[in-house]
Amino acid sequence: MILGIDIGGTSTKLGLVLDGKVLRQTRVPTTGHADDHAFADALAVAANGLLRAEDLSPLRGVGIGAPNANQFTGIIEMAPNLPWKHDVPFARMMQDRLGVPAVLGNDANAAALGEWRYGVGQGCDDLLVVTIGTGVGSGFIVNGRLVLGSAGNAGELGHMTLVVGGRACTCGRAGCLEAYVSIRGMRQTYAELAADLSVLQEEGVRCIADAADRGDTAALRTFEETVGWLAVGLANAVAITGPGRVVLFGGITRSGELLMAPLRNRFQEALLNIYRGRVDLSVSALEDDDAAILGAAALTTL
Amino acid sequence: MILGIDIGGTSTKLGLVLDGKVLRQTRVPTTGHADDHAFADALAVAANGLLRAEDLSPLRGVGIGAPNANQFTGIIEMAPNLPWKHDVPFARMMQDRLGVPAVLGNDANAAALGEWRYGVGQGCDDLLVVTIGTGVGSGFIVNGRLVLGSAGNAGELGHMTLVVGGRACTCGRAGCLEAYVSIRGMRQTYAELAADLSVLQEEGVRCIADAADRGDTAALRTFEETVGWLAVGLANAVAITGPGRVVLFGGITRSGELLMAPLRNRFQEALLNIYRGRVDLSVSALEDDDAAILGAAALTTL
Repeated sequence: MILGIDIGGTSTKLGLVLDGKVLRQTRVPTTGHADDHAFADALAVAANGLLRAEDLSPLRGVGIGAPNANQFTGIIEMAPNLPWKHDVPFARMMQDRLGVPAVLGNDANAAALGEWRYGVGQGCDDLLVVTIGTGVGSGFIVNGRLVLGSAGNAGELGHMTLVVGGRACTCGRAGCLEAYVSIRGMRQTYAELAADLSVLQEEGVRCIADAADRGDTAALRTFEETVGWLAVGLANAVAITGPGRVVLFGGITRSGELLMAPLRNRFQEALLNIYRGRVDLSVSALEDDDAAILGAAALTTL
Repeated sequence: MILGIDIGGTSTKLGLVLDGKVLRQTRVPTTGHADDHAFADALAVAANGLLRAEDLSPLRGVGIGAPNANQFTGIIEMAPNLPWKHDVPFARMMQDRLGVPAVLGNDANAAALGEWRYGVGQGCDDLLVVTIGTGVGSGFIVNGRLVLGSAGNAGELGHMTLVVGGRACTCGRAGCLEAYVSIRGMRQTYAELAADLSVLQEEGVRCIADAADRGDTAALRTFEETVGWLAVGLANAVAITGPGRVVLFGGITRSGELLMAPLRNRFQEALLNIYRGRVDLSVSALEDDDAAILGAAALTTL
């Protein structure tokens, strides 16, 4: 049995994983703790709450997915979206508290592993998983192994430059895929296109999808432009690692066919001819919480 | 002993490789043969001419690098820059003629293997090799293995879209890196910038480099723009596979510091912060002919 922990900006999910299933799960707020050690203590308490005496399988390890996590060092490196701005050696901190080996990995890489081991990426040893939410994360499987790169930080498709001199990105550069295709990017596109911004009074992109369903021109145009950028970004990634399947995951994919129907066409059009018809485009079929926990747990099997 | 064969658009190089050295080499024209079988016959004759009775090491295999080669099938697939427009099962054709196993691979992948095994990429198991000549080819090493992709055609960095709706590319799409950074791309940039096109009466990019050395404004500007595009293209590739080293190879790199001095700066600037200072940028130090032959021979060791 493995404990999977997915650390998000506001909430952290924990779950016990056995045979590719999440047995029990719970959540702990990521914010509001005195410091990183108090947060780790709270996670240990929650984990021990999940582990019951009647369980036959002993806990074998902990897999932790987090933003800005370096798998080589086990350190969360100055994560802009987490409460602690210093380097946090989180793998060691959980290992000390739970007494079993802990592996820390990038959350997007964890999602990729989850899809590969338990989701629609099963059996595909050259796979790309793209998580589209507040930002755009990605995890690449190549030759049946996760791509970590020489410094443990590979797989940043969201920070591929798509428009030289384009929109400012949170990374400090300009024109990144993420500046156009994330929740933030879609909201900015809508704001640039719409005369009336009342739709944006709600958070997220559900409000833009609803407006599109009502025939709001700016909302329809926002989806069209987002689909165009995403198609080019995915095609560029395909030209490098040649995956047989691309799996999309995260908030924006909940817009369903409003996004996916035009994307399937634009993606094939954007591909170099030798890849056309050879790359499958899928949406994750895992439950959101399960996917994050399964992926984090899968980090221990690397 | 391995026979390495590098099939180019006009000329094909053959060489005998032992212990990472090219013992003897020769060339055969790629064009002017009755058909693909006649060309294979000519290569077999040339290969037998290289093999001498006094050689102690028997020939163990043949590695063949070619454009549009699919390593999974051993077929050269409708190569636009070779005389035969149909699918040519070249691995089998050479195996039949020489009586030893033959492996066919993409020429850019062969170059990457050559740099990794024998060149400046030695010891770097996450490596990117980019060949810039008539076109832009690339070969990626990830986790110590060549990236072939699910269909055997990964590594087409030259056809990453850098400018949506940009310059027409030979691939039929628009805005590819190759449309800006190749010999053809640089000449087009010069033609767009210069009032007087007499410099382009000579072929290649040497003439533009010479003009830049004389202070020709359009030529200097051409190098500046080329460096800018190449920096972004390389940074985008780094964001995906996170190599520790990038090696440049091919015609344009002969422009030396005129290209490389500004490129080193622009490349670091173009990188996402987490990669800055962590990716080395080098130029191939192998002799052109040797690199192609060594790389082709290295295909047999996969």
